[in-house]
Amino acid sequence: MTTEAQYLSALEKTFNSRSAEVVVGIGDDAAVISPQKRALALSTDMAVEGTHFNRAWSSLYEIGAKICAANLADIFAMGGRPKFLLVAAAIPQEFSIQDLINVAEGIRDEAAKVGAFVIGGDLTRSPLLTIAISVYGDVENPILRSGAQIGDVVALSSLPGDSARGLELLQAGINDERSAAHKYPQVEYEKVAKLNRAFVHSLTDVSDGLVEELSSIARLSEVGIELSSEHLKKDLHVLHGGEDHVFVGTFTQAPDGWIEIGKVVFGNSVRLDGEIITHQGFTHF
Amino acid sequence: MTTEAQYLSALEKTFNSRSAEVVVGIGDDAAVISPQKRALALSTDMAVEGTHFNRAWSSLYEIGAKICAANLADIFAMGGRPKFLLVAAAIPQEFSIQDLINVAEGIRDEAAKVGAFVIGGDLTRSPLLTIAISVYGDVENPILRSGAQIGDVVALSSLPGDSARGLELLQAGINDERSAAHKYPQVEYEKVAKLNRAFVHSLTDVSDGLVEELSSIARLSEVGIELSSEHLKKDLHVLHGGEDHVFVGTFTQAPDGWIEIGKVVFGNSVRLDGEIITHQGFTHF
Repeated sequence: MTTEAQYLSALEKTFNSRSAEVVVGIGDDAAVISPQKRALALSTDMAVEGTHFNRAWSSLYEIGAKICAANLADIFAMGGRPKFLLVAAAIPQEFSIQDLINVAEGIRDEAAKVGAFVIGGDLTRSPLLTIAISVYGDVENPILRSGAQIGDVVALSSLPGDSARGLELLQAGINDERSAAHKYPQVEYEKVAKLNRAFVHSLTDVSDGLVEELSSIARLSEVGIELSSEHLKKDLHVLHGGEDHVFVGTFTQAPDGWIEIGKVVFGNSVRLDGEIITHQGFTHF
Repeated sequence: MTTEAQYLSALEKTFNSRSAEVVVGIGDDAAVISPQKRALALSTDMAVEGTHFNRAWSSLYEIGAKICAANLADIFAMGGRPKFLLVAAAIPQEFSIQDLINVAEGIRDEAAKVGAFVIGGDLTRSPLLTIAISVYGDVENPILRSGAQIGDVVALSSLPGDSARGLELLQAGINDERSAAHKYPQVEYEKVAKLNRAFVHSLTDVSDGLVEELSSIARLSEVGIELSSEHLKKDLHVLHGGEDHVFVGTFTQAPDGWIEIGKVVFGNSVRLDGEIITHQGFTHF
């Protein structure tokens, strides 16, 4: 059986980034950072084998990249920039050093896309591979879900649904390129990073399904949202599928390259072509 | 089956602390903090049912408090002060709202002992109750494991071993007050907080066993450590038992109320009464 010291030595080599803002990195009781900005955004996400991923479908690299992407997207959805990650992982007895490196490289490479890196973590055992990442980012003037205003347009960075459609295929025994969005989502980080903030009133990423996220914006902003099926189609995957981590927000005008799907109105519900619509399915609960 | 919304509503009531440093609390994509100090210590710890705890022995309140204590101790061991926690939890299907509140109150109450509180998290499902906490604290001049100097005295805040002894009794089917230290460790946070920093060269908490932690200090500081059995006894629980989260460090002189157990010397090993001693047993690996 592989010892903890052997695993940790492999991880230290994989996560070897340096930054002037990191006073203490991997290897002590805690990491210490000295961030440049005065406000920090913090978020955490956990993924459990059998609930969130299946090792028969996804490579360990993809599993690491996907849970990392979910965390990074949360910080971008606040209008922030992810910088540092802590990774807690519980691994099965049969996990090899190479297995662990594969997960770690998936995390490392996804984080590197946005200039973030791992500065600490915890490693332990579980029969079910379980990964919890927490992420810290700089943020100025956070963009909240509660900021939607009557008259805003609702816009999506891209259509969601490919992940949910891919999962259905995998569950039906079909593992081909159509499932790539489920196994290894390509998150449009830069599409959010280059938004003109003056036009953005609210923003989130679609983790749990578009209708679910818009219902959260409507409730927290005390507004209604009217969607049109013109650009959305009445497709269950588009309306309720999560985990694509496309971004949806409300704006004074639709940003270039985003898809306008509706309007913020008086009220307290989300409507599609005039009919009230609520979340269904596609949840890890 | 309980819905995610019902669980989350209960958690928002349990974790209802406020602070001027928290710009955005529970309920958005990420929490946002505006810390007073320029340096932040970050750490994470994960506990998995069957690996770290057993619901037949420990109450859910104790389980929450214990994993929280492990996180808080890491920040004190850096010379920092914990302030904010993120909690990621994966809970079994049969978990009731009250079960979740019991875990949450254990976490909340342990954190409150040192003035820290929960500002965000993630909730999901697993057949094995799994909790990952990450903690953020203020720190100035972090105390590293690499700071031990030749001539330092080695001192303990208290004798470890009660947790390991308690676990042995539980494994033998005996669940009485002698196992309290395993189920619900009482960490001496304030004994560290009031140390005179001018005398402290290195510090850690005993998570994985005294010999293991001192070996880490010796390796990172490039020194040897000579222990005397006079105050330690040659007791396997004291030498190798983890999870009491007593603190051990090296000092220019032993702090009041701490137990002097040895000296920092030239070399690269940990010795007890002159014999090289290495870590054995009591690990989650």
